[in-house]
Amino acid sequence: MKEMLYEGKAKRIYSTEDPQIVLIEYKDSATAFNGQKKADITGKGRLNNEITSSLFLKLKEQGIDSHFIKRVSETEQLVKKVSIIPLEVVVRNIAAGSFSKRLGVEEGRPLSGPIVEFYLKNDDLGDPLVTKSHILELKAATTEEISILRDKALQINEVLINFFDNLGVNLIDFKLEFGKDQDGQILLADEISPDTCRLWDQKTNEKLDKDVFRRDLGSLTEAYETILKRLGGHQHV
Amino acid sequence: MKEMLYEGKAKRIYSTEDPQIVLIEYKDSATAFNGQKKADITGKGRLNNEITSSLFLKLKEQGIDSHFIKRVSETEQLVKKVSIIPLEVVVRNIAAGSFSKRLGVEEGRPLSGPIVEFYLKNDDLGDPLVTKSHILELKAATTEEISILRDKALQINEVLINFFDNLGVNLIDFKLEFGKDQDGQILLADEISPDTCRLWDQKTNEKLDKDVFRRDLGSLTEAYETILKRLGGHQHV
Repeated sequence: MKEMLYEGKAKRIYSTEDPQIVLIEYKDSATAFNGQKKADITGKGRLNNEITSSLFLKLKEQGIDSHFIKRVSETEQLVKKVSIIPLEVVVRNIAAGSFSKRLGVEEGRPLSGPIVEFYLKNDDLGDPLVTKSHILELKAATTEEISILRDKALQINEVLINFFDNLGVNLIDFKLEFGKDQDGQILLADEISPDTCRLWDQKTNEKLDKDVFRRDLGSLTEAYETILKRLGGHQHV
Repeated sequence: MKEMLYEGKAKRIYSTEDPQIVLIEYKDSATAFNGQKKADITGKGRLNNEITSSLFLKLKEQGIDSHFIKRVSETEQLVKKVSIIPLEVVVRNIAAGSFSKRLGVEEGRPLSGPIVEFYLKNDDLGDPLVTKSHILELKAATTEEISILRDKALQINEVLINFFDNLGVNLIDFKLEFGKDQDGQILLADEISPDTCRLWDQKTNEKLDKDVFRRDLGSLTEAYETILKRLGGHQHV
């Protein structure tokens, strides 16, 4: 019987008959600003489940493993059970969002190269930016793991920049999470979707990501549908 | 004629007849929380001028150069003119202050080793924490300079820990600034005082630093006098 193991802001995780596999259900809820802004948005769960599945498959084709096994319904996917490393790994190609605000860099300014940042996954603390020394002091990861996370994040960035470029979309920045499987292997986990990426249309600069919700710029589902369509549209289970 | 070149929150800087030398006047003003809390405190200027002078001389004896030339009055000192690198270099030995708050680490917990942090010197942005990638992107310093700043900060930490330990005081953390002289040499600059250090009495854990002002813990000048006395007391110019 499936038992709920965890409920987060946008997903529920259930056990399966195989102890090494869990089921992720994508919820129809949008949250921003560490949960201070919330809404139920019908269709969001399906969109993020489909987009994440599609992106994890495309990454797999390029030799980048993730926890993803397969999509099993409109809002559900099976994934390898991993123990999440408590860091959010952010890659930035173009200044935007908190980067622009914190450092006084105009939104939209291309960076001289991709920047990798680490944030401590801790809602109570508001996911603070951390340096390598902080990560080591807090034992959130080892020096070797930090280096692996950085390398994988930059490799994923290269692949995703190309994917999205072919779809007429600029990949501004995105957040990744990683986990360790039972053999201690570090795998890409969580999701890659317009909830966790900034995606701007190359022609119009229209935002096709969660900033639509954060900044009240229009219909979130329309923006996410645009991304899904360009990725190849709805795939039947 | 001396001309005021700059007025900061705690100091004024004047030109001298020698273009390579400036005069720093320490003001009787205390500020905290990026200037949101302010007070005039008679005697503070003299105390910080004397303490900083004494510490820069002690560092010099250990081979660590700074901009300091000599103290010339109760509240004034002559220093080499440098161009300040726009980074605050913080060294932490024991968790306290913003470190404890941001990362959820109990104040007073010894760190497994000294941690060096960099903050962008920018009042408008509230001096944000920056990583090496941010520093390079903002061109605040080069890779080589970051490495020099880190090495010097750790070297200064070792010397200061010993100084203060001999005075029955624990050096919890401190902030340094560095500048480049006309030959491009990186020199320790600004001040080292209870305004820029956390200093706790080893026996009582009494705070002998600006937290007395930040947290309304009693008389700031009494705390600073305690540090000055232990350092060898008032030195006549």
